[in-house]
Amino acid sequence: MTGITDARIRDSFARQGLMDSFGARLEQVSSGRVLLSAPITAASSQQHGFAHAGLTFALGDSASGYAALTQMAEGAEVMTVEMKINLIAPGDGLRLWAHGEVVKPGRRLFVTRCTVEVERPDGSRRDVALLQGTMIPV
Amino acid sequence: MTGITDARIRDSFARQGLMDSFGARLEQVSSGRVLLSAPITAASSQQHGFAHAGLTFALGDSASGYAALTQMAEGAEVMTVEMKINLIAPGDGLRLWAHGEVVKPGRRLFVTRCTVEVERPDGSRRDVALLQGTMIPV
Amino acid sequence: MTGITDARIRDSFARQGLMDSFGARLEQVSSGRVLLSAPITAASSQQHGFAHAGLTFALGDSASGYAALTQMAEGAEVMTVEMKINLIAPGDGLRLWAHGEVVKPGRRLFVTRCTVEVERPDGSRRDVALLQGTMIPV
Amino acid sequence: MTGITDARIRDSFARQGLMDSFGARLEQVSSGRVLLSAPITAASSQQHGFAHAGLTFALGDSASGYAALTQMAEGAEVMTVEMKINLIAPGDGLRLWAHGEVVKPGRRLFVTRCTVEVERPDGSRRDVALLQGTMIPV
Repeated sequence: MTGITDARIRDSFARQGLMDSFGARLEQVSSGRVLLSAPITAASSQQHGFAHAGLTFALGDSASGYAALTQMAEGAEVMTVEMKINLIAPGDGLRLWAHGEVVKPGRRLFVTRCTVEVERPDGSRRDVALLQGTMIPV
Repeated sequence: MTGITDARIRDSFARQGLMDSFGARLEQVSSGRVLLSAPITAASSQQHGFAHAGLTFALGDSASGYAALTQMAEGAEVMTVEMKINLIAPGDGLRLWAHGEVVKPGRRLFVTRCTVEVERPDGSRRDVALLQGTMIPV
Repeated sequence: MTGITDARIRDSFARQGLMDSFGARLEQVSSGRVLLSAPITAASSQQHGFAHAGLTFALGDSASGYAALTQMAEGAEVMTVEMKINLIAPGDGLRLWAHGEVVKPGRRLFVTRCTVEVERPDGSRRDVALLQGTMIPV
Repeated sequence: MTGITDARIRDSFARQGLMDSFGARLEQVSSGRVLLSAPITAASSQQHGFAHAGLTFALGDSASGYAALTQMAEGAEVMTVEMKINLIAPGDGLRLWAHGEVVKPGRRLFVTRCTVEVERPDGSRRDVALLQGTMIPV
């Protein structure tokens, strides 16, 4: 993981309008791993005030994609081929944390997994979603 | 499909902060089918100005969930158990259209599919994503 | 769809030991579409005598892969990148029928869908599974 | 994990005709975890003699389902709601090992993951597939 790679991830992340709309932050970047977070607000909620599955997915997908991008050749960009999400608990709390990681890098495709946690008002966290998907360099 | 069911969908949709943030519209509701749309804006884009996968997913997931809700018992609400999305073309255009439908209603679970199209500046549309998932009444 | 392509599918199918073990038949081949069937026997059942999900998946995955192969360049072979299956009814009957189709051909990847039906003793059929996945030429 | 639960898993496994056809073995059972293995033979291969995706899926799905069954109420049986598999390397070797585990038990649904490894002639192993799915008690 070089400073150049880190800058590439930060630059791409900064250009994602949706991540900006969500107030998402790029928390950590290392080879094959990216951590993102975003607050759960009225603007990103579902009908009960919990995190909308669209927010949970967006963070998990982006953390997965950027995790893959850390291991792609210079100049490459990353696109999602497909992504599966299992929602295992309501996103009832203050902030989501998405831990994306590469589980199989490849020349043509990258397989990724991501766990998304919700941070409760008391600071505790619990898992809300598990993602497994495929990324492609373009 | 009664007026009561239609009102139930519209009421739930109106309470989803994320759909409001996206400027999403509930276009059509019938038994087992829901059509949503949303503009592609700088606020919902990825790094190339195309629709972010998070927007595409959020619309497709919501169209799927509301399609299921049209066939659930009165008083029920709907949650996503799991959802798989295949992204088949870039969301390069003005607006996304998400066609959600129930493929298998059940007492305990509903299986849904959704096709998301992008509307181009010339008015033409093409498919950008296919979703297949499971909804549960709560 | 040329006779050459048809022969290519039949040749590859004939070399799949698992399809032979299952007594599977290549029923129809056309561009982007393949139909397979297999009997439900004691040797391919789960604990209640119904079709095992492994049989349902194997047929659906093979029908999907061969549907993609009909549209791949000569000399290519096909591999499954990923596959999602929703099981929507028990495989309670005599024979499974798997209808695979290409929904998005591509230079690098093919997206496929497949519906698997069970044939009942009275000749009626009903859907038992829906598959959506990604195939790659190798 | 009681002896009773262990016996329940072994009894159900023994009644699965497909597992018997594959020569599959129930290697280990503990609360929330099940390990299965099966030889790769001409009868379970694809066109290159590697493990057919249908074999890989069948083992991974069964290991996942039985992992869930270890945590279900007495008298319950388990069915697969949906399963996603990413195939990350060819099943080129002698035997497959499927490590199923519960990642989220629930009253109504269980979320599972499974890693399938191939054992090479030199005794080394490598991952060939990752599964993530949903099980339901019936």
